[in-house]
Amino acid sequence: MTVRFRSDMVVELVKHSAADADVVLAARVSTQGARAGAATDAQKDAGLIGYLMRDRHGSPFEHSVFTFYVEAPIFVWREHMRHRIASYNEESGRYKVLEPVFYLPGADRNLVQTGKPGAYEFVPGTPDQYRRLVERSTRVCEVAYAAYRESLDDGLAREVARMDLPVRLYSAAFVTMNARALMNFLSLRVKSDAATFPSFPQREIELVAEAYEREFARLMPVTHAAFVRGGRVAP
Amino acid sequence: MTVRFRSDMVVELVKHSAADADVVLAARVSTQGARAGAATDAQKDAGLIGYLMRDRHGSPFEHSVFTFYVEAPIFVWREHMRHRIASYNEESGRYKVLEPVFYLPGADRNLVQTGKPGAYEFVPGTPDQYRRLVERSTRVCEVAYAAYRESLDDGLAREVARMDLPVRLYSAAFVTMNARALMNFLSLRVKSDAATFPSFPQREIELVAEAYEREFARLMPVTHAAFVRGGRVAP
Amino acid sequence: MTVRFRSDMVVELVKHSAADADVVLAARVSTQGARAGAATDAQKDAGLIGYLMRDRHGSPFEHSVFTFYVEAPIFVWREHMRHRIASYNEESGRYKVLEPVFYLPGADRNLVQTGKPGAYEFVPGTPDQYRRLVERSTRVCEVAYAAYRESLDDGLAREVARMDLPVRLYSAAFVTMNARALMNFLSLRVKSDAATFPSFPQREIELVAEAYEREFARLMPVTHAAFVRGGRVAP
Amino acid sequence: MTVRFRSDMVVELVKHSAADADVVLAARVSTQGARAGAATDAQKDAGLIGYLMRDRHGSPFEHSVFTFYVEAPIFVWREHMRHRIASYNEESGRYKVLEPVFYLPGADRNLVQTGKPGAYEFVPGTPDQYRRLVERSTRVCEVAYAAYRESLDDGLAREVARMDLPVRLYSAAFVTMNARALMNFLSLRVKSDAATFPSFPQREIELVAEAYEREFARLMPVTHAAFVRGGRVAP
Repeated sequence: MTVRFRSDMVVELVKHSAADADVVLAARVSTQGARAGAATDAQKDAGLIGYLMRDRHGSPFEHSVFTFYVEAPIFVWREHMRHRIASYNEESGRYKVLEPVFYLPGADRNLVQTGKPGAYEFVPGTPDQYRRLVERSTRVCEVAYAAYRESLDDGLAREVARMDLPVRLYSAAFVTMNARALMNFLSLRVKSDAATFPSFPQREIELVAEAYEREFARLMPVTHAAFVRGGRVAP
Repeated sequence: MTVRFRSDMVVELVKHSAADADVVLAARVSTQGARAGAATDAQKDAGLIGYLMRDRHGSPFEHSVFTFYVEAPIFVWREHMRHRIASYNEESGRYKVLEPVFYLPGADRNLVQTGKPGAYEFVPGTPDQYRRLVERSTRVCEVAYAAYRESLDDGLAREVARMDLPVRLYSAAFVTMNARALMNFLSLRVKSDAATFPSFPQREIELVAEAYEREFARLMPVTHAAFVRGGRVAP
Repeated sequence: MTVRFRSDMVVELVKHSAADADVVLAARVSTQGARAGAATDAQKDAGLIGYLMRDRHGSPFEHSVFTFYVEAPIFVWREHMRHRIASYNEESGRYKVLEPVFYLPGADRNLVQTGKPGAYEFVPGTPDQYRRLVERSTRVCEVAYAAYRESLDDGLAREVARMDLPVRLYSAAFVTMNARALMNFLSLRVKSDAATFPSFPQREIELVAEAYEREFARLMPVTHAAFVRGGRVAP
Repeated sequence: MTVRFRSDMVVELVKHSAADADVVLAARVSTQGARAGAATDAQKDAGLIGYLMRDRHGSPFEHSVFTFYVEAPIFVWREHMRHRIASYNEESGRYKVLEPVFYLPGADRNLVQTGKPGAYEFVPGTPDQYRRLVERSTRVCEVAYAAYRESLDDGLAREVARMDLPVRLYSAAFVTMNARALMNFLSLRVKSDAATFPSFPQREIELVAEAYEREFARLMPVTHAAFVRGGRVAP
């Protein structure tokens, strides 16, 4: 069996219950009590959302929820699952035979780290460094996946056989997060010079976060704009 | 100003992202990996949901989310907010003047408690007991709300004035919960002879829970049936 | 039965598992792997804690946990319980007869609110305003508690009788929070000119928060200093 | 560099704030209000804990907290971190060079899976199956770790180099959980014929869970006994 390599992350919006208007409705329950009507004033709404973001009233953003289907390597999932205000269903190596699909950094991925702890920077590697990386990783994945297959063919349980697979193996999952948790994710997993609190995510989880952010900006443009304007601080 | 009394709970489904099919899709990511197609077999799906419920695989139920608008007395909200896997925006007595709307038990509400701690039963009161209760509560609410208005009229802050109001005052909120958290709520807040683990909720929060359950059963009939069949144990 | 009035909050540290050294140990697992030894360098430790706070690496602060016993009025508990990353056991009016102890603002509590939504200020009331408030609240509490007693004496269930009691009634609870959640609580529930993100808590929950902060500062002085220095932003 | 193989899990109790008496104190706040005194009756306490467990009043168990230092393979951490009501600080391959220590199943680990989805059983492999597994895994780990070292020696960033490492690599973490979350963990991660809801954990996370359970039983013997007696249902 041939191993396959990819450099992309798959992020598809499966469904959502997310809208700027819902933030406004939820906030108005606090200040107006009875369920506010639908007729609203776009400028006033934007002002209210900006105020909520600035003063860190985060709860009105929790009623907007996104469900994504994501394919990413295991080492990305390991970071992703540290976000506990979220719901996950990930592909399981105990229940199915895992496909030989592995992540390889794209040629444009910065490979070399400079600086010191707490202030790393990443810069490009040379073409030779990249070539050697690809050679090594290809070899590792071939040996590892061959061992996995041999274990299965030898009658071993899937959960035992999978132990040989590297963390660059792709895995798929459903991820559901509300807009507040999503903004927290974005504040930590996207690098931005405009951020009040700088963050230094690994590039691969940043790819996932960037795709999340595109959907977020599309479905909740006013909230997203307020988030960016406020220095990407999750309320 | 006249005080008003009500005995009902308002529960309106504001929006949702909830379906039996989503449970199946999420579960299939674990066992099939790639995003499963839409074509499914109703009987197989019901079987899968039943299996998930029985073996307490709860995470596939978390991707289905409900947002309710609820009006209930403060003493109900005090119990409701103990459910932490949920999102809330409640009317605030710091931000708005509170309306003189108060809860009174309906004439059919059991008023008398018998038995001992851990095994209480509630039985009807006499018409006289009920009449005296209504008289007393009316008096308390009138005195309390008059004091509240006087405090406001005297120039005191809303957050100071409200301290005199009783916990039978109505308050409104947005509540967002996923189906897993909702089943946990229902398992604790609905009394049922069919429950594997008996629960003894106060009748007023049970009224809210029953309304939630109707929407849950309507939108996720297969999941709801499996929940009931399984002894109302939240997975 | 005579009603009693108090203006204080009780906050007692019941137990804890909290120390600056634990933050350092937990953080070092990330960067050094094997369990780091006990011998540490106070200055280096303070530097590490400052870095974690500044770059918002919050998880090392979660292993330090505080359990408090708190007495506060119901309207404070209503705000407190909105903090979901915490554990609570509160006195229950379903299980016990509630004592006639009520909160009255102290004479030094600012009673009057000026300014507009989002930018309120509180200023002192006049002695006459305060006197009238005390008179009204005394009357309300006497009427309400008398009604509560009458309901009990009339044979009604405690959970029914309690509905007449005002939110200024005292209630007691155990509260357990880790240092990260506690810093979030303090950032929202203490007003401070030094705060990067200003907050406008109600004075009564601020009294509880101030008591929490004293224990936090005593048990985790390096973490507390870093929190204050960093503009009271919870990591 | 030589790779090393181990079959054990390290679980050390770092600190705790856990005791049966605390469960009782917390529960008594609900039913007695004021902070109950220290003088208690062991038999009554056991009865109360049994009642809480049986009727699924879980919150009094949350004030007891355990912090563990754990060494386990990555595939175990992947399952462990799905438990969200917990605090983690894990060794990071972005911040440090990872040691060549890998998990190999012990000779007594059941290697072969029989039965069908939802009802798997694990039975021993033959000595030959085990020998071949060890040979394959040794080969994979040697190739993978050599690639990792070569990547580092070639100047690549640690976070890039680590992608070749298999999920049987050991990693260390601090884990803090309260007794309620811990019982949920044990109910799912220990296989027991006495369980009301059967669970089928992978053997390696069960090894971690068994070590947790020993500490839990030692520090909270009455709670643990009630948990077992009640069919290992987390309250």
